[in-house]
Amino acid sequence: MKLYPERSETAAGMAAAMQAGLTTSVQIVETCLSRIDDRDLEIHAWVSVDRDGALAVAVERDRERATGKTRGPLHGIPIGIKDIVDVEGMVTGAGSPLMSQGPPADRDAELVGLLRNAGAVILGKTVTTQFACFDPPPTRNPWNVAHTPGGSSSGSAAAVAAGMCPVAIGSQTGGSITRPASFCGVLGCKPTFGTVSVDGVVPIAKSLDHPGPIARSVEDLAMVLSVLQSWPSGQVELSNENRTALRIGRLRGFHEDLVDPELKAAIDQSLDSLMTAGCLVYDINVPAGFDELPAHHKLIMAAGAAAWHRERFAEHRDDYGPCVASLIEEGLAESATDYIKAREHQAVMSQRMNSVFGDDLDVLLTPATIGPAPDASSTGNPAMNAPWSYTGLPTVSLPIGFSEEGLPLSIQLAGRLNGDSELLRASAFCERILRTR
Amino acid sequence: MKLYPERSETAAGMAAAMQAGLTTSVQIVETCLSRIDDRDLEIHAWVSVDRDGALAVAVERDRERATGKTRGPLHGIPIGIKDIVDVEGMVTGAGSPLMSQGPPADRDAELVGLLRNAGAVILGKTVTTQFACFDPPPTRNPWNVAHTPGGSSSGSAAAVAAGMCPVAIGSQTGGSITRPASFCGVLGCKPTFGTVSVDGVVPIAKSLDHPGPIARSVEDLAMVLSVLQSWPSGQVELSNENRTALRIGRLRGFHEDLVDPELKAAIDQSLDSLMTAGCLVYDINVPAGFDELPAHHKLIMAAGAAAWHRERFAEHRDDYGPCVASLIEEGLAESATDYIKAREHQAVMSQRMNSVFGDDLDVLLTPATIGPAPDASSTGNPAMNAPWSYTGLPTVSLPIGFSEEGLPLSIQLAGRLNGDSELLRASAFCERILRTR
Repeated sequence: MKLYPERSETAAGMAAAMQAGLTTSVQIVETCLSRIDDRDLEIHAWVSVDRDGALAVAVERDRERATGKTRGPLHGIPIGIKDIVDVEGMVTGAGSPLMSQGPPADRDAELVGLLRNAGAVILGKTVTTQFACFDPPPTRNPWNVAHTPGGSSSGSAAAVAAGMCPVAIGSQTGGSITRPASFCGVLGCKPTFGTVSVDGVVPIAKSLDHPGPIARSVEDLAMVLSVLQSWPSGQVELSNENRTALRIGRLRGFHEDLVDPELKAAIDQSLDSLMTAGCLVYDINVPAGFDELPAHHKLIMAAGAAAWHRERFAEHRDDYGPCVASLIEEGLAESATDYIKAREHQAVMSQRMNSVFGDDLDVLLTPATIGPAPDASSTGNPAMNAPWSYTGLPTVSLPIGFSEEGLPLSIQLAGRLNGDSELLRASAFCERILRTR
Repeated sequence: MKLYPERSETAAGMAAAMQAGLTTSVQIVETCLSRIDDRDLEIHAWVSVDRDGALAVAVERDRERATGKTRGPLHGIPIGIKDIVDVEGMVTGAGSPLMSQGPPADRDAELVGLLRNAGAVILGKTVTTQFACFDPPPTRNPWNVAHTPGGSSSGSAAAVAAGMCPVAIGSQTGGSITRPASFCGVLGCKPTFGTVSVDGVVPIAKSLDHPGPIARSVEDLAMVLSVLQSWPSGQVELSNENRTALRIGRLRGFHEDLVDPELKAAIDQSLDSLMTAGCLVYDINVPAGFDELPAHHKLIMAAGAAAWHRERFAEHRDDYGPCVASLIEEGLAESATDYIKAREHQAVMSQRMNSVFGDDLDVLLTPATIGPAPDASSTGNPAMNAPWSYTGLPTVSLPIGFSEEGLPLSIQLAGRLNGDSELLRASAFCERILRTR
């Protein structure tokens, strides 16, 4: 395994190879299935794999391509879907023993429909922590199976890292895309809040939930996001050979006290490389009100979970994992006035965080996690990611190296609200510098 | 007093007369002041009148006009502002003994700035019920001072009805524009939710609050709304001589059981006139979920009020009127999960109510109130208006006649979300038919 694989291992590379007649969707799907066979007993990234269905669709996509027809940028590309997202004909288990007994979904989530329309082959459902919260999943980190892959998009990150699929869909309410992507040494994108449909996705808190892609290159993140956000012009142009300098704001007051020294050192080295490549780095303080953010984020998340679960929870308390149960109990005890105050704070902080960019910055930079993946008894700390889920600004996380123990380390870049394409362009620039270090 | 005055008594007529050199802003302001002197001891529409300030601005507007410059459609037109809206240099009393002791506002509410930029002369602050809730105000109904003018925009409606100003700004969270406008025999417009700024306006519940105009013609409503909503093309063209038929949906299941028979009969007559004029009238049922609307509306309003007031209320409980105190206490006791469920219901009902129009309807029609203004011990029942505050669809209310006791009766027209201009055009059509009945 490598942090940044050969382009042939990325979705964009696969698409180019299919287009050039060098491979087929069937061959790509078969390779994914064989990697799942090889390692998934150990990694447990998948809840279910639709072998026959995926191969049948791949055959169909290959047949279409042979007649000169492609559906979109993901034509023939296999994708894993986090098991809180409805896929027609498959049970949406949401990591819960209760939900796993339910009937199959009778229609695709809106985002799955968009992926299919763009030609994607739905390979199967990837493991989520129970109801996308904090209870440790069966999934293990492909770099070291004694460690957590992070959560809640545990299976999506682990599957992409292990090469079982080039891209997968995750979702983030606290740190559920960025944290597992970073722990597993792959890339995650949490788009601007509200820009990717949550229709057909099991919610935690509708004012915090963000679906988004996990992949192994910025190009692949952009390819999937262009489909999920229905960009009018298709893909973004990521090449920025002529860019002379990226203006990076290093965010200060952003929970530095929690960050592992090894990760801090790796980030300092990355910044050195970026500056050598011409980037300008500014130290920027978090906006006023940041101290209250974690408590308000937790309150909104707990209340949202409690609102969605309360009837089921009252009846089936014992079927809930301890972390999600505790979150729901907290939410049930919250008052409407505290909730309203928290939502007002959220709206204010979203504007303030967006204003931090001023006219002078292209991206904000922070650690993607507080350190490398801890052992498998937890899913790690979302402190670095929750502020972005709360304020809704888009983020991309990129691997930058390894801990002494051989576990991946990552940085997190944030862009302006609705500046997702600009963020991806800046991330592609950073990726080019950092992958060759 | 007449339900529909001569055009010279409307803002549009005044603007035309000023433009033609037949009158001046100073003369218009002086007429308003003299009517206030004549009747306001009896009606109590005003908290404060800025005589010197208004006359000074009128002089300035007249001077500008003499040099060929006009600021916008409201150039030289006097306007009353509900006393929950900040006007620089004036105390925002919000009908509360506590707030009335506060310092003057240090800047204009955003909407006041827009009015001034369009040339308006701010005449003074009109009476609101305490914190725009249900405690009866000192204001009386100009048609019969034993009766309420309605609330909470009590002073705005009474002032316009008594000719003390051609237009005034109100706000609605339940029925606070439509109800007082209807009880006072003038016209009210509650715009689409979120289209008029609430910056600098004392809130009840931010997810329900709508500022909007009260006036004596649809043309005047449109003139003020074009400024409040910053229409790119200025005013809407209200003439629709060529319209052959307005397709009206008479809403069924909309609290008919509460409606006074006298009002029902007047509405039937209005519909007859409209049908004679070529309109098509369809009976349309309220959408599923309507039964739960009143309870959820109340919950959101109470929780919003409680969130805004809770610190002040804890300290100054005895300074609150009984109705607003009871609302706040109800809100303080509400849970976050009930609030979230109510907000989700609100979002669903907004879409469902908007879908009622289908392709076939121009407007929905209901009674504007449950009957004529009751006595002054209450502000009347907002049941006919709260569904529109909840769903956010725009409404216009129009006088259609009088009760046996001589109190005004009105209909309420609703348009599609963001279809405010179309609603005003349809309302102008109805006004032309109904005012000549």
